Amino acid sequence: MTASSSRLQGVFSPVLTPFKPDYSPDPDRFIRHCRWLLDQEVGLSVFGTNSEANSMSVSEKQRLLDALLEAGIPPGRLMPGTGCCALPDSIELTKRAVQAGVGGCLMLPPFYYKGVSDEGLYRAFASVIDAVADERLRIYLYHIPPVSSTPISRGLVARLLKSYPTIVAGMKDSSGDWNNTRAMIEEFGPQGFDVFAGSESFLLANLRAGGPGCITATANVNPTKIVQLYKSWRNADADDQQKALDATRAAFAQFPMVAAMKAAIAWKTGRQDWAVVRPPLVDLDAPQRQTLQATLDKVAFTMPNAGALA
Amino acid sequence: MTASSSRLQGVFSPVLTPFKPDYSPDPDRFIRHCRWLLDQEVGLSVFGTNSEANSMSVSEKQRLLDALLEAGIPPGRLMPGTGCCALPDSIELTKRAVQAGVGGCLMLPPFYYKGVSDEGLYRAFASVIDAVADERLRIYLYHIPPVSSTPISRGLVARLLKSYPTIVAGMKDSSGDWNNTRAMIEEFGPQGFDVFAGSESFLLANLRAGGPGCITATANVNPTKIVQLYKSWRNADADDQQKALDATRAAFAQFPMVAAMKAAIAWKTGRQDWAVVRPPLVDLDAPQRQTLQATLDKVAFTMPNAGALA
Repeated sequence: MTASSSRLQGVFSPVLTPFKPDYSPDPDRFIRHCRWLLDQEVGLSVFGTNSEANSMSVSEKQRLLDALLEAGIPPGRLMPGTGCCALPDSIELTKRAVQAGVGGCLMLPPFYYKGVSDEGLYRAFASVIDAVADERLRIYLYHIPPVSSTPISRGLVARLLKSYPTIVAGMKDSSGDWNNTRAMIEEFGPQGFDVFAGSESFLLANLRAGGPGCITATANVNPTKIVQLYKSWRNADADDQQKALDATRAAFAQFPMVAAMKAAIAWKTGRQDWAVVRPPLVDLDAPQRQTLQATLDKVAFTMPNAGALA
Repeated sequence: MTASSSRLQGVFSPVLTPFKPDYSPDPDRFIRHCRWLLDQEVGLSVFGTNSEANSMSVSEKQRLLDALLEAGIPPGRLMPGTGCCALPDSIELTKRAVQAGVGGCLMLPPFYYKGVSDEGLYRAFASVIDAVADERLRIYLYHIPPVSSTPISRGLVARLLKSYPTIVAGMKDSSGDWNNTRAMIEEFGPQGFDVFAGSESFLLANLRAGGPGCITATANVNPTKIVQLYKSWRNADADDQQKALDATRAAFAQFPMVAAMKAAIAWKTGRQDWAVVRPPLVDLDAPQRQTLQATLDKVAFTMPNAGALA
């Protein structure tokens, strides 16, 4: 069991990856965005779904990770996504992340082949763990069936925990199904398995159930208020805070989230290149941007110190 | 428009990738399997779904392609899969394949992000085509919604054909929906767009509708009879031939196809390492192998000259 003090908790963000107009990653803006998030006390789940990580090559991710480390970003605040379709890619990224001293790795199951068995997923995760062969490794299993179409079942979690009790550290549950999150917390929480909610919509529920917090896309744009709820969830106004978070999230969720968040940052910073997404994602068009801005104004959306991102 | 003589047609196989017990690819068996398929007049769609291509890194695929070329496999008989989730990976693999002189590239759309728009998929394919920037490129769009969850719509085909009439050469339709294949042939066939059936189940229908043939997993194990139907589909016994092909396919399809085909080759060659699949796929267990062998015996399954694969 890891010591409680070393366990990751709180609010994490799948950090948006800034691209240049030619679609190449922009390490400078990436570093600035990570620093800004850390200033807001948000941890860095770089290379998540909302980071467009699966639209990037392994070497692009390696270079961005190196850039963060060289810029002095504390590795213990990083929980990079390192799960790929191809076993050697997952091993390479995970090994590199552990050597850098990251706090944990968020690991997608291999997601191309559908209808794979728990036995196959067990072998996939176990192969990565065995190949990395490093006691410092902490894996957070990434359950996001609406995108990966490859669920992480309770049976699979139980089996992995049994084989690798210190390495398998927790989960991000992006199923959108609170009953699943609760069941995971109840069954595996007592073994030190930390089940993060996959969005701030379930942050209050997660904390009340004994969970560690959330890993949420919206923390890229609305970090202050999400962290505020994390810190004050026992207060009387917690339900009201949750409702306010939900309203802001809904404003973004009326459009594809990555494009909407990037459009909002471009708007608030005045840097139009922040709006660039890699195919197959598509940036918002002008009418969509107008609608987004009007909706965000209605919920009194602000980005503190947005200038730091420009 | 490409000259008719240079267009790919006939029976292609997503070539099974032999792995060693440590899961590393075995280039020697790969070369022998490709030679055996060519001897049976089957074209080589290496790095397809049934090749476990999405469980391999870009560099593993590059090395296997190099091994084939060094072994003298004629590049014009190759239609490698080069579509990945990440744009730079697709560009790198496609560029390399075109430089090698392959007959065409079978291109998956980026398949992680779900619900993406035709605009986003258009940008993804166009970005690859523009970056490869080689008039020799011939792309076969890979429509396999049961696995990729990312369909290639007729609207998308029309738009790509308009922008890149010589480069967008055809499609593999693995939807399992014959009505879709027929509609694609009827709408785009007259422009020289070659719609391959995604399995031999639709080979006869494809040829009768004016299609070019099929790209089918089962050609890895049952090439002779599939090619025989391709060559004699106007004969009176064509429907009977199709029924026999369907019965053999059904014997394999009672189990996950890749594991079943590899188990059959291990059985017929006596080489047990042929049964190895990479996670998240799982090899057949002993009772499954027994059932498979019994079913295959019932349909009088044989592999001609299987010794060449051992």
